[in-house]
Amino acid sequence: MISKVLFRVEGGAEMNLAVSADESLLDAARKAGLAIDAPCSGNGTCGKCRVKVIGGKVESGNRRFISPDDYADGWRLACASRTESDVTVLVPATAGAYKNRIKVTELQTGRDKAAFEHLRGELRDMGYLGSVSGHQGSGIEFLSLDMGQASADDPLADRERLVRGIEEKLCSRTARAIDLSLHALRKLPQILRESSFACTCVIREETGGGYRVLDIFPAGEAPVLAGLAIDIGTTTVAAVLMDIQTGEVLAAGSGGNDQIRYGADVINRIIESTRPGGLERLRKAISQDSIIPLVQSLSDSAGVPLEQIYRVAIAANTTMTHLFLGVYPDNLRLEPYVPAFFQAGRLRCVDSGLDVHPDAELLLAPAVGSYVGGDISAGVFSSMIFKKKTYSLFIDLGTNGELVFGNDEFLMSCACSAGPAFEGGDISCGMRATEGAVEACRIDEATMEPVLTVIGNGKPSGLCGSGLIDMIGELFRCSIINARGKIVREGKRIHRDEYGMGSYTIAQNLWITEGDIDNFIRAKGAIFSAIRTMLIMLDFSVEAIEDVYIAGGIGSGINVEGAIRIGMLPKLPSERYHYIGNTSLYGAYAMAVSCGAAGRIAEIAHGLTYLELSAHTSYMDEFIAACFLPHTNGALFA
Amino acid sequence: MISKVLFRVEGGAEMNLAVSADESLLDAARKAGLAIDAPCSGNGTCGKCRVKVIGGKVESGNRRFISPDDYADGWRLACASRTESDVTVLVPATAGAYKNRIKVTELQTGRDKAAFEHLRGELRDMGYLGSVSGHQGSGIEFLSLDMGQASADDPLADRERLVRGIEEKLCSRTARAIDLSLHALRKLPQILRESSFACTCVIREETGGGYRVLDIFPAGEAPVLAGLAIDIGTTTVAAVLMDIQTGEVLAAGSGGNDQIRYGADVINRIIESTRPGGLERLRKAISQDSIIPLVQSLSDSAGVPLEQIYRVAIAANTTMTHLFLGVYPDNLRLEPYVPAFFQAGRLRCVDSGLDVHPDAELLLAPAVGSYVGGDISAGVFSSMIFKKKTYSLFIDLGTNGELVFGNDEFLMSCACSAGPAFEGGDISCGMRATEGAVEACRIDEATMEPVLTVIGNGKPSGLCGSGLIDMIGELFRCSIINARGKIVREGKRIHRDEYGMGSYTIAQNLWITEGDIDNFIRAKGAIFSAIRTMLIMLDFSVEAIEDVYIAGGIGSGINVEGAIRIGMLPKLPSERYHYIGNTSLYGAYAMAVSCGAAGRIAEIAHGLTYLELSAHTSYMDEFIAACFLPHTNGALFA
Repeated sequence: MISKVLFRVEGGAEMNLAVSADESLLDAARKAGLAIDAPCSGNGTCGKCRVKVIGGKVESGNRRFISPDDYADGWRLACASRTESDVTVLVPATAGAYKNRIKVTELQTGRDKAAFEHLRGELRDMGYLGSVSGHQGSGIEFLSLDMGQASADDPLADRERLVRGIEEKLCSRTARAIDLSLHALRKLPQILRESSFACTCVIREETGGGYRVLDIFPAGEAPVLAGLAIDIGTTTVAAVLMDIQTGEVLAAGSGGNDQIRYGADVINRIIESTRPGGLERLRKAISQDSIIPLVQSLSDSAGVPLEQIYRVAIAANTTMTHLFLGVYPDNLRLEPYVPAFFQAGRLRCVDSGLDVHPDAELLLAPAVGSYVGGDISAGVFSSMIFKKKTYSLFIDLGTNGELVFGNDEFLMSCACSAGPAFEGGDISCGMRATEGAVEACRIDEATMEPVLTVIGNGKPSGLCGSGLIDMIGELFRCSIINARGKIVREGKRIHRDEYGMGSYTIAQNLWITEGDIDNFIRAKGAIFSAIRTMLIMLDFSVEAIEDVYIAGGIGSGINVEGAIRIGMLPKLPSERYHYIGNTSLYGAYAMAVSCGAAGRIAEIAHGLTYLELSAHTSYMDEFIAACFLPHTNGALFA
Repeated sequence: MISKVLFRVEGGAEMNLAVSADESLLDAARKAGLAIDAPCSGNGTCGKCRVKVIGGKVESGNRRFISPDDYADGWRLACASRTESDVTVLVPATAGAYKNRIKVTELQTGRDKAAFEHLRGELRDMGYLGSVSGHQGSGIEFLSLDMGQASADDPLADRERLVRGIEEKLCSRTARAIDLSLHALRKLPQILRESSFACTCVIREETGGGYRVLDIFPAGEAPVLAGLAIDIGTTTVAAVLMDIQTGEVLAAGSGGNDQIRYGADVINRIIESTRPGGLERLRKAISQDSIIPLVQSLSDSAGVPLEQIYRVAIAANTTMTHLFLGVYPDNLRLEPYVPAFFQAGRLRCVDSGLDVHPDAELLLAPAVGSYVGGDISAGVFSSMIFKKKTYSLFIDLGTNGELVFGNDEFLMSCACSAGPAFEGGDISCGMRATEGAVEACRIDEATMEPVLTVIGNGKPSGLCGSGLIDMIGELFRCSIINARGKIVREGKRIHRDEYGMGSYTIAQNLWITEGDIDNFIRAKGAIFSAIRTMLIMLDFSVEAIEDVYIAGGIGSGINVEGAIRIGMLPKLPSERYHYIGNTSLYGAYAMAVSCGAAGRIAEIAHGLTYLELSAHTSYMDEFIAACFLPHTNGALFA
């Protein structure tokens, strides 16, 4: 049977299409190109794909995430609903919350600006930025030439004239091959004649030796030499456009990873990639639907044309780099967990469909293993822990949790499946750290009333990672939940559904359930037990850690005391903790502006020892012990 | 005023469109995507765009190419006709004779097969083909690897495992960087697991050092490593697909250069390129409309997928290389005649829109000057005159005529605008050397009746270059035309139009006019006077020429005695003349199969001295003297 479905998007468009009886409303919405998040990939386990049937009849098997009142009102899970007649469906505006909402920031203020300034200082000190040789710096520079008019006596072709001019100008450097990109060759005849055979070239020192003329401008023009750094997170894509010579940030922004439609975590994405056409669908979702519009926004915002982006550096976890390049990732989740590549080698942006300068290099931060990716090697670089004599612990709280411990003599890494809780996934009230997200909270112990800090100061629409940590810390501090995460007080903010599942109401239409708390406890347990296991393996005590660097997109900061109180982070003086933001993006930034930094990141990846936690039986015991608030061994946090 | 035009293509489609009063029928046809040849670019000087108006009224200013009978029948020049009402127009099948008719030949027989066999022998003798080092040979080879299963104890990533395997295998060679193309990386995980981590790689030695893995196949497979050579002529495009390792020709074919719609000669094309959007139109005409369908045909015919074409070499005149790459060519026709490039440098096929292997190199034979292009440096190589102690003259009879004279110690070149007569252009009965072309003829002196040799043995539909030379030689031998090319006999085959212009009827609907003969005489005069001027400049006598090599697409051969009789070629024993075919294509073939040959062609281009004929006053005198049959100085041919 074929039914007609009219999707009415809250505050937006309407869409009509024909749907057969065996298609779910979620499948139908996807066919219509309508964004409805389904982090669980349509398995009915995340509760995110709620829609309201306002006309006609659907059959819907799963009521788990729908209260009886809401059910009576017509709310259903799109993934679990099939049409029994022509229907009209209201899609709430929040249904596409994960969808690519690109936000461009000017970096005029705030933490990110400070972080980039700090990094620029570090790069300058290391000789990776500024007027240093190409091998250390960007390797891309201007060269001004005045070659003299072509004439019957000197009828050399334009290209050969340019090459002769460059050779003369660079005579102090070793004589090496000079070549032109087709982009520059196409501009050459007119620019030479417009400006009396004088011009400004953009030349790049080549790894194989010699120089490549990437671009050419009329004499006197000083265009921006732009580079682009991208962090592809499982949930969020962040990018920054910079001046490749000075390191100045020209525009920064972020958006969702559109692959979220096919699953919230890497495992669901990998499974999707094994379906017919799945790999290409995922490649397009990240490349065409997520990265390209974001890059276009940055280009527009900074007023820098795409063709003036001469290098792109990307840092991402191993699955994301595979999917971005269209390389089959299934072996990442099959024993013996072997990726298709650690290093992607010398690629051009055009190979991956990125439409910037046609000869722009594409650099990917090298991975250490299947579960410790380029985001970590880039992150370790920008944390600078590899330069310290003292011991540091680096924690990247993303969809997976990755840890690196060590100093300037050794670095050991491991990864644990924390799940997407810290980025708002697998949590019914979770969301990314964008406008409307609760990023901090305080609960009155007596009244159980919360005071929320919301990004953008508007109406709260969900909890981001830091808000979630705070919320659970407060619920625990106020004895609203017990050590197992069960709600043990009653009151007007406490509700229980027909199965007895409790929830705490944060605000109107926003609540946290025992299921959410359970998911969070497993996430924090995975992190803490990984830290413990690694330290025990290395025979280090917790106190040996001089600094803990926390990276990732969990929000504008983390309440360290709260995180220690619930047993997520080891008990150390809070001044040893530092939230250092999106280190994956910062590392990609360093690669874009400096060949030296890119080389250093490759060395870091090569030198990182990988510890496979699952190979150690003690890890499971540690994990189970950590799945309490704060821990079965309370002395660790006393 | 807007009129409706219905184009009815003879034996084919119908097309309807609206046309304004200021658009010619030719413009309208172009808008409709209908091929009507206009070698003169719509200036009303070639007479090729004849159409028949069978309904409605047009205003048509130019009657020059239309006989009164034909005019009464409704025949008009499309370029000179504008609608005065809705009209129906018959487009004869011959209107698109120049249009891309792709012909794939198997090279099982004939001159081309012999020519390639001969060239393969020469290349082998010179060490450029067969089992020689990469620098001399193709530089692309197979490498079989067996790397052993990945395991928990050896969890190296696939790419790094492959690189390690290659390094071990190549340990006898210098240690150098090994990289993978994205194409190979994408195939890698599945192929390794399909064939137990054994595989066959296609590796290329890189100019900057190191190797690049272009492709990967399951162990035991021995795919063809294909290369492609293309000759882009102003009129014709010829291509050959070969096995890059053995040099074996897999498929060969040719088609028209679709740019012919915008003009028959390079000057008209260059003018078109200066119009808005013109450069891109011309680039697409040669790339998308001419080359890509031809390459696809060869790929289909040989059963070799496009992605297995690992190198493409192109030889063409300077204007064609500019237009193919989308580089503005206008300075080629403006003093001081400076091209945008002699050498195009290291390019990839994808840069030019050629959809073969994504990392395939694109090699362009280097030019010597604005009017001596890569087709000549490639042609000189394949003629092998650069290796001889004795003096040779190399003549390429294309739309332009180019000459090279010299031996293993020096080579001098010059170019003359012969016009497109030898390829059938500017001649009312002219056509390319394809099916239906008269390629030779004999006229009975008494009856003036001709005996024709027609390619394909069918009905004659025009004269190709060799047929034209023969025809004029015979008309002159039979005293039907005088030394100035005027018809001086009368008879049933002789007609004169209202202006007194004579013509000789070759067959039904096929005649040669005094205008055609005049165009031809100027073409042969340009060639002969260029030879004379160059020899005089160098102080060589004609007898010093041991061998004359004639190249170009004039037909399956040339009647040398006839050509000498009419004063086109110098008087030398006919055994010194050799017709050697499409040397530009042969040279491109050599570049595709051998890096050594490509280097040698670059050296030839570098060493060729260019003689600018127009700088020598004697050239004009020589030209005027040569515009007679055979010459004002008859002693030269006595």
